Amino acid sequence: MENNAFYAQSGGVTSVINASAAGVIEAASKTKGIDAVLAGQNGILGALTEELIDTSQWETSAIESLKNTPAGAFGSCRYKLGSIETNHDQYKRLIEVFKAHSIRYFFYNGGGDSADTCLKVSKISNLMGYPIAAIHIPKTVDNDLPITDCSPGFGSVAKYVAVSLKEAILDVASMCKTSTKVFVMEVMGRHAGWIAAAGGLAENDDNPLPIVILFPEIAFDKTAFLSKVKHNIEIFGYCAVVVSEGVKQSNGEFLSDQGTSDAFGHAQLGGVAPVIANIINHELRVKYHWAVSDYLQRAARHIASKTDLEHSIAVGQAAVALALEGKNAVMPSIVRLSDEPYAWKIGVANLEEIANVEKKLPREFINKDGFGITDKAKKYMKPLITGEAYPTYTEGVPNYLFLNKDLVKKKLKNNFSPS
Amino acid sequence: MENNAFYAQSGGVTSVINASAAGVIEAASKTKGIDAVLAGQNGILGALTEELIDTSQWETSAIESLKNTPAGAFGSCRYKLGSIETNHDQYKRLIEVFKAHSIRYFFYNGGGDSADTCLKVSKISNLMGYPIAAIHIPKTVDNDLPITDCSPGFGSVAKYVAVSLKEAILDVASMCKTSTKVFVMEVMGRHAGWIAAAGGLAENDDNPLPIVILFPEIAFDKTAFLSKVKHNIEIFGYCAVVVSEGVKQSNGEFLSDQGTSDAFGHAQLGGVAPVIANIINHELRVKYHWAVSDYLQRAARHIASKTDLEHSIAVGQAAVALALEGKNAVMPSIVRLSDEPYAWKIGVANLEEIANVEKKLPREFINKDGFGITDKAKKYMKPLITGEAYPTYTEGVPNYLFLNKDLVKKKLKNNFSPS
Repeated sequence: MENNAFYAQSGGVTSVINASAAGVIEAASKTKGIDAVLAGQNGILGALTEELIDTSQWETSAIESLKNTPAGAFGSCRYKLGSIETNHDQYKRLIEVFKAHSIRYFFYNGGGDSADTCLKVSKISNLMGYPIAAIHIPKTVDNDLPITDCSPGFGSVAKYVAVSLKEAILDVASMCKTSTKVFVMEVMGRHAGWIAAAGGLAENDDNPLPIVILFPEIAFDKTAFLSKVKHNIEIFGYCAVVVSEGVKQSNGEFLSDQGTSDAFGHAQLGGVAPVIANIINHELRVKYHWAVSDYLQRAARHIASKTDLEHSIAVGQAAVALALEGKNAVMPSIVRLSDEPYAWKIGVANLEEIANVEKKLPREFINKDGFGITDKAKKYMKPLITGEAYPTYTEGVPNYLFLNKDLVKKKLKNNFSPS
Repeated sequence: MENNAFYAQSGGVTSVINASAAGVIEAASKTKGIDAVLAGQNGILGALTEELIDTSQWETSAIESLKNTPAGAFGSCRYKLGSIETNHDQYKRLIEVFKAHSIRYFFYNGGGDSADTCLKVSKISNLMGYPIAAIHIPKTVDNDLPITDCSPGFGSVAKYVAVSLKEAILDVASMCKTSTKVFVMEVMGRHAGWIAAAGGLAENDDNPLPIVILFPEIAFDKTAFLSKVKHNIEIFGYCAVVVSEGVKQSNGEFLSDQGTSDAFGHAQLGGVAPVIANIINHELRVKYHWAVSDYLQRAARHIASKTDLEHSIAVGQAAVALALEGKNAVMPSIVRLSDEPYAWKIGVANLEEIANVEKKLPREFINKDGFGITDKAKKYMKPLITGEAYPTYTEGVPNYLFLNKDLVKKKLKNNFSPS
């Protein structure tokens, strides 16, 4: 009888999530314990709909290329399994598909919501008497997973923000005499200010720069903010503002709320940069420019962090090792051994402690006035953005892999429509 | 008696304009014809206010670092000299400053408006009987300078757009099953669609991608646009839209006009991406994301084009050579010798033919339906984005040069306040 593994990608993708996929596929190919890795087309949906991709259809070189290709090569999904009590059909279907394809290992690559899905799968396995080892593989640009020192995906988006902001600062510094004096950059991070904090890395220790950061952890104080920006313009001639999409007013409302929400019920945000820019324009009467990086920041494989890439591959490989050791409902984590020189190893975290827990930016990482980061934050983040890991290029653009995916022949007679 | 040169940066900066500065400074240091290169602090303003920076204060290594540092190291300006007839004081002052600092050569690094300034300087030199060779050095991300095959600065922003869009496309392709189906990316290019056209380079010849480009040259046709986006979603599951900031309605009005204008009297734009996203949301009812790159695109030295960098250095060097040959009111241009393999040389263009002329994207570069680019456009642009020219990094961020600029001691007694 075969022992197959299921692997799927979940939630918002990153520039290095495919490197975790490559880690899983490579590690599995080197062990006799796993016969095939079947990837779910569009995350857990692929398991429900029996849309499975046999990853052995590709040469080793294609799997290697996955490490250099951003986003989710197998398709991701925003789909959270319902409670076990009220969604029996869904779970029954999952087990049917797993049985039909001899799937004994379940690898789910995602953030906090996905850890919850992974935990539910491990629970139904027990309840329904079909043994399956469910291992969660950490991934989120938001860096809000608990226990692990960092979340694979964060280091690269942090590097993108630090590099891009440093470049934009040089730009506005050039222009400020007769033109733009304030540059506003909106970054991701719905409830945690990790990505916004990375803006502080644009500044070298010996070269202070006028950077004002608006964190979701600190209620927006318009008066203090404008005073800080004005002060910077007086001293430097210009000011750069990094604003998290999740910045809230003191009443708890998002500064910019589009009024729509995603499948997890989270408010979908975007466009707080123009709100900040307009405030600056109305109150300070200076010329401004604003940018919203959106997907560009989390997909920017061309400027991915080498450390982050190595973490991502390692958690994929470790997931396979944990599964073969008989572990269940766990997640490989990143354990920091030393800041300088940076050293780390893989640890193991229980999913019960991971699922649905958000790790906010600690207050000690934010400086006194609430508009910048502390040395402690820099010490934490610097190793995570260190090192470059460039993709190869042809005619000026990266050789990213667009997989042609043949689906595994379905074995079940009935189809299933996920609600 | 000394023979000094004046060099200044003008208008919107680019990721490689400092490489042209390095070209000028290096070439000047190798000839006996020029004693010192005095850079203007904030463009032509530095000449008017006698704020000059002696570039010999830095080691060769700093000048080399300029090639790897984006934006304008000496400060740029948006300031257009008035007509010679009505602004006599201004021109008299320029000549006074030039005389006081033995400036015989005037190198002005900018776009079409700056070429006009450069031409005026060459004219007053004759009118006021003080001989000065005025050479314009081409620079503009907009690629709208005539005569020259391309404008230094464009290749790098085009590469940024092609790479970033390719990455975002992989992202939205991963998410489209359950979430975002349309990604909108706003790019620069006030009146010419060159930068928007670069979005078409995200697609390889053998891998068609659902990219819809909105050019300033083509009036926005909402019905045709929505039908194109809808078609792409049906075929691919998702669609990427590249929208130029300068897209106009059929009545000639900008689709998004913030109502403010810069010092040249151009409308300042920004924020057309959310306008497009809202149209998509209202009419097609699909989930969207949007990005506005703004300064990030033109400052992105980390992903600069090697070809573009080489052009930029070469036009700086050539400007010095032209000046020493006794040329006046000219601009070194890029002359294309061959598409494949790409070959080019430096030519010479007369400023009379450059100043205030805008080169639009030719209609033959835009495909029939007006939403994409032709093979001819790809053949033209591909060499310009080819090659990577990475800066060095320390602790995850590029080693960009922040110059500490000591100003040359003023020689004139009177100060001058530019209007």
